[in-house]
Amino acid sequence: MPKISERGIRIPESPIRKFVPYAEEAKRKGKTVYHLNIGQPDIPTPEVALNAIRNTDLKVVEYSHSAGIESYRRKLAKYYQNLEIHVDHNDILITTGGSEAILFGMLSCFNPGEEVIISEPYYANYNGFSIAAGVEIKPVTASIQNGFALPPIEEFERLITPKTKGIIICNPNNPTGYLYSKEELLKLKEVITTYDLYLFSDEVYREFCYDGHSHFSAMHLEGVDEQIVMMDSVSKRYSSCGARIGALVTKNREIIHTALKFAQARLSPPSFGQIAAEAALETPPEYFKEVHQEYIERRNFMVNALNKMEGVVCPLPKGAFYTVTHLPVDDADKFSQWLLSDFEYNNATVMLAPASGFYATPGLGKQEVRIAYVLKIEKLEKAMKCLDEALKVYPGRTL
Amino acid sequence: MPKISERGIRIPESPIRKFVPYAEEAKRKGKTVYHLNIGQPDIPTPEVALNAIRNTDLKVVEYSHSAGIESYRRKLAKYYQNLEIHVDHNDILITTGGSEAILFGMLSCFNPGEEVIISEPYYANYNGFSIAAGVEIKPVTASIQNGFALPPIEEFERLITPKTKGIIICNPNNPTGYLYSKEELLKLKEVITTYDLYLFSDEVYREFCYDGHSHFSAMHLEGVDEQIVMMDSVSKRYSSCGARIGALVTKNREIIHTALKFAQARLSPPSFGQIAAEAALETPPEYFKEVHQEYIERRNFMVNALNKMEGVVCPLPKGAFYTVTHLPVDDADKFSQWLLSDFEYNNATVMLAPASGFYATPGLGKQEVRIAYVLKIEKLEKAMKCLDEALKVYPGRTL
Repeated sequence: MPKISERGIRIPESPIRKFVPYAEEAKRKGKTVYHLNIGQPDIPTPEVALNAIRNTDLKVVEYSHSAGIESYRRKLAKYYQNLEIHVDHNDILITTGGSEAILFGMLSCFNPGEEVIISEPYYANYNGFSIAAGVEIKPVTASIQNGFALPPIEEFERLITPKTKGIIICNPNNPTGYLYSKEELLKLKEVITTYDLYLFSDEVYREFCYDGHSHFSAMHLEGVDEQIVMMDSVSKRYSSCGARIGALVTKNREIIHTALKFAQARLSPPSFGQIAAEAALETPPEYFKEVHQEYIERRNFMVNALNKMEGVVCPLPKGAFYTVTHLPVDDADKFSQWLLSDFEYNNATVMLAPASGFYATPGLGKQEVRIAYVLKIEKLEKAMKCLDEALKVYPGRTL
Repeated sequence: MPKISERGIRIPESPIRKFVPYAEEAKRKGKTVYHLNIGQPDIPTPEVALNAIRNTDLKVVEYSHSAGIESYRRKLAKYYQNLEIHVDHNDILITTGGSEAILFGMLSCFNPGEEVIISEPYYANYNGFSIAAGVEIKPVTASIQNGFALPPIEEFERLITPKTKGIIICNPNNPTGYLYSKEELLKLKEVITTYDLYLFSDEVYREFCYDGHSHFSAMHLEGVDEQIVMMDSVSKRYSSCGARIGALVTKNREIIHTALKFAQARLSPPSFGQIAAEAALETPPEYFKEVHQEYIERRNFMVNALNKMEGVVCPLPKGAFYTVTHLPVDDADKFSQWLLSDFEYNNATVMLAPASGFYATPGLGKQEVRIAYVLKIEKLEKAMKCLDEALKVYPGRTL
């Protein structure tokens, strides 16, 4: 039998899915499992998007343009222009989710064997895309003590070699919820200018910024247009994860031209999803106000509840709907599994994503978990109570 | 400015899209352009599929399982079982179009630098996927004289090196319309057994077999379960190209396991498309009868019309809805462009796909074009008349 590809073997198991079999077993036994492990919001998709699908008069579900439906790209460009991101529809390639935007960005900008620097903990799926594209991720470590702020720029510089071709940020950050400031973006601008690098900016959580902080996009950086590639998605903005519509956005036409070749090979992004996404641009502002308010309440409740638990440290995230939290446990992997297989409180338990899988450096994140606050307050209350009780009795407690 | 990736530059321009700007210019000038260049059927999508979308009661458009909705995979397995393809839902990974199935297959089975053998002319988008995956395509040439039958097996063997890892076929074939026989499949089985290779079989045109010929799937080959990977799609079967739903099917669990890792990185296939595809499995048999009849009529008309033109040779395709046809011209690329920019008949012209882009060997296919019979007979008639007149006056005519 021929051997399968080695690169498949190199993809680490997803920290989000690692314990799914244990969760399934727990459910089979009748336990309620509160899913704080995955970024699947419970927020309804805007009616205007769903109605566009329900009212479709399509007769033939045809391929769209490989770069996406032009009317959608034109409207999306306006959405960006309203955010002071000055692009037109030719600077936008509609992709199958933000995922494909990352893959196309890597395939288009980096050669196999070239390196990118990413601040860890980082979105674990970057591993899959970088392995697919043959690109090496070099991590700089952000620390919980600094609330996962951008590591000192010298640490980026220390990693730069002739193979280094880019830096990837996710802003607001998944998994940490950290929102990069204008000052931090300006520091990154300096590095990419000095060392002639691309800056990939994954901004799918743009709408989720709290406490009056506004989002400073990498596309706002001046004089480095050709070096900035933005990844976007409708998944979180309109709670439309399953639509699989994202975008690769850049003023660098050579990148668009190259990415379009990969896009043409896969023919087109999903047509139904594009119909929903185009309609979603008409979502009324009240929708976002409500969602924003809901997440602030959830976050405040959760961060407060976590920090009240002895030995738990949870920085206040300024964006997205995640937090990476320190727990007083020997090994967050073991603890996460134990929660599902050995613990219950009022016949319920909690599913977390151990943070080790979000780090590239072995051994890091051992006492940290990512928690997604994607459940209603009533459920979050029960989940936090569960976690509190679990930490009291977990045999591997360190403090 | 950092350099873009060299691999993007290596992707040849799509032979289907090559002359799109000329077609647009022709339309601007008021010419009718008959599109025989692209495999976008005009057949209506089954109502049952569209209704499933129109009647959706989804509140949140969530991610599906990364391998696809389980109920869909279970029903799809039954569809295969009815074709004597004995798989269950665990042997199926739902992908974003057949395109992603090819990419995942390559990423999962082949290491960068490994080689696959493909009979040319072949589906040009294999170039994009193989370059993305770092896999080298080695072509064996099928000839129009033999109606594009499988080249002698010795020619495959001649190309085998220690780097050779697989053979890819498309059956029925795009671009030639050739339908591989059971005997040809058995020959391929021998080669993959002797040399320990994978056989990828792209069977998205399975339903389009004519003249009483039945489809012999690579999955019907016995004793080589672990070496067969089938790629499938709903695009052509249900005229649902824009749904972007395909499948990777194999009894080799190690491949499924590995492909699932790439699938998890991109989270899930499109939810709306899966809803349509699942419903499409209930399409009444009359739909297929009508479609089948329609394509037979189109094919018969077109092949007949082509062969009546002096110097034109068009083999009778037994499957799919394409033909690769010999034209008495100096250069089919020049001719295809000339048709759009310099020719008109009754204020109309024809868009063809020059076949050179379907060959890997430079210089081949120079007098061939791929023609897709995806238009109604009335339009095909006009298109064939146009082509006939064009060949009479084309300055680069060779015969």
